[in-house]
Amino acid sequence: MSLIVTGTVGIDTVEAPTGSREDVLGGSCVYFAAAASFFSPVRIVAAAGDDLPDEHRRVLDHFTGIDTRGLEVRAGSRTFRWGCRYLDDMNERETLYTSLGVLEEEPPTVPDAFRDSQYVFLANSHPAVQMNMLSQLHQPTLAVADTMDLWINIAREELISLLERIDGVILNDSEARLFTGKSNLRHAAEKIIEYGPAFVVVKKGEHGCIMVHRDGIAALPAYPSREVVDPTGAGDSFAGGMMGSIAAQDDHSLHAIQHGLACGTVVASFNIESFTLDRLKTLDKNQLQARLAKFAEMVRVN
Amino acid sequence: MSLIVTGTVGIDTVEAPTGSREDVLGGSCVYFAAAASFFSPVRIVAAAGDDLPDEHRRVLDHFTGIDTRGLEVRAGSRTFRWGCRYLDDMNERETLYTSLGVLEEEPPTVPDAFRDSQYVFLANSHPAVQMNMLSQLHQPTLAVADTMDLWINIAREELISLLERIDGVILNDSEARLFTGKSNLRHAAEKIIEYGPAFVVVKKGEHGCIMVHRDGIAALPAYPSREVVDPTGAGDSFAGGMMGSIAAQDDHSLHAIQHGLACGTVVASFNIESFTLDRLKTLDKNQLQARLAKFAEMVRVN
Repeated sequence: MSLIVTGTVGIDTVEAPTGSREDVLGGSCVYFAAAASFFSPVRIVAAAGDDLPDEHRRVLDHFTGIDTRGLEVRAGSRTFRWGCRYLDDMNERETLYTSLGVLEEEPPTVPDAFRDSQYVFLANSHPAVQMNMLSQLHQPTLAVADTMDLWINIAREELISLLERIDGVILNDSEARLFTGKSNLRHAAEKIIEYGPAFVVVKKGEHGCIMVHRDGIAALPAYPSREVVDPTGAGDSFAGGMMGSIAAQDDHSLHAIQHGLACGTVVASFNIESFTLDRLKTLDKNQLQARLAKFAEMVRVN
Repeated sequence: MSLIVTGTVGIDTVEAPTGSREDVLGGSCVYFAAAASFFSPVRIVAAAGDDLPDEHRRVLDHFTGIDTRGLEVRAGSRTFRWGCRYLDDMNERETLYTSLGVLEEEPPTVPDAFRDSQYVFLANSHPAVQMNMLSQLHQPTLAVADTMDLWINIAREELISLLERIDGVILNDSEARLFTGKSNLRHAAEKIIEYGPAFVVVKKGEHGCIMVHRDGIAALPAYPSREVVDPTGAGDSFAGGMMGSIAAQDDHSLHAIQHGLACGTVVASFNIESFTLDRLKTLDKNQLQARLAKFAEMVRVN
């Protein structure tokens, strides 16, 4: 079924103990769509400036099934740019700079051809912008949103309004604690559900994720990677794998989402093996399925 | 099949944000045996002083299948005593005092009737003491040891000699990193296996565990508890559930140990719901099996 993502296309600079990359392709929409494309066709809605290099644009064509008709490349505008540095253990990072560019302009419009999308992912953005995107869609089957500490701090009311309208939310452990004031993640997730969504996925980075759903609870470890080159995009590629799998199954029951969590975990584990989309670009579906089968064996308990 | 544990019987004082308990029953052997007893009969080898209150002694009789013939209560000796304080988030603790008592004397002897034990757990102790215990057993099927940062720092050579003789080792993430100098846990565990054991279980507290085994890798989240009252004994009850399950299955293949990891995870999740053994004392097998089934559903990916 039709899957759509709204978010950013960015130009990233990353410094890490494993190396550095300057002005590479990034952005939530990009990581999400690349990951999702292994499971389902995916439509993207995002804006970029005319400084977005052609080679970055062409990266998206590398992935079968990414529909870029919703990517607005605006003359005279600047693409969102972001730089970060990872610290020694790769679990902490500091932002070097953020240049909003086109993100300070009007948000992109959802093309008419995309308005019938059934599965929706609203990547991290101001909750009012996410709400606006959602309102342009006719009747989605499942709408899921990401968020971040910034919006929890400065746009809490808008975020609460959004939670009343969506089916699922994905956020980090620290964000779940910040939003609810509860340190126990199960309590925090249960509290978030009271605002409206049927499920909450709490991402714990190298420690995996837990999901609290009205119908039950799921918990998975991260894939135990030998090699982490660049964690950038881990959360968005996780969400992409999860939503891509759900759209492919055309099922958003607890069990279908649980399978999605595993798909997200595994595709994210490939993503962090390289800078930008280098690893996902060379990944084939057989490799992905093989690691997915291996992961299923790893968490087998009976 | 016969399961044996060597370790401590202790008198603990615990201060936590959830409350405090003074001079309650504790010790690695006690938590291990109580947890293991839900799966398999278990023999304990430990020493205590004659200051061990009768009521503490009687707690062990509460659990069906704990064979206490190897518990030496020594006249004129003092029981091991330990006090600790948990900090706000329960993931950090500080030791308030340690009074070794009987642990400074000769280690206990393995009774003749226990020397045919097939499944062996050497709870945390000086590796030379663990080696001595192991050498008193005829021909164990599977010997697994716990250790701690202290021995890694001051008895590294003896620990390496022990690793050459045992089949499995259980340790914390920080200990695995300390022993190997590798921050990536998969690398660290793979490095430990090079010293001899067939498998290494790395405990990550609230984040679950990973196991690297010569035949494959396993990873599980912790059970997402709503209520953590006292984490004391979590590691030992985890090991008890794991080894009890392995002994009950009489199988130490990768899959049998994986099932053991789930059993350990679940029994430990009950243990931390109370101080000392209060929760395990009231736990019945049906409750345990029900949570085990729930946990299996939580980590289900297909």
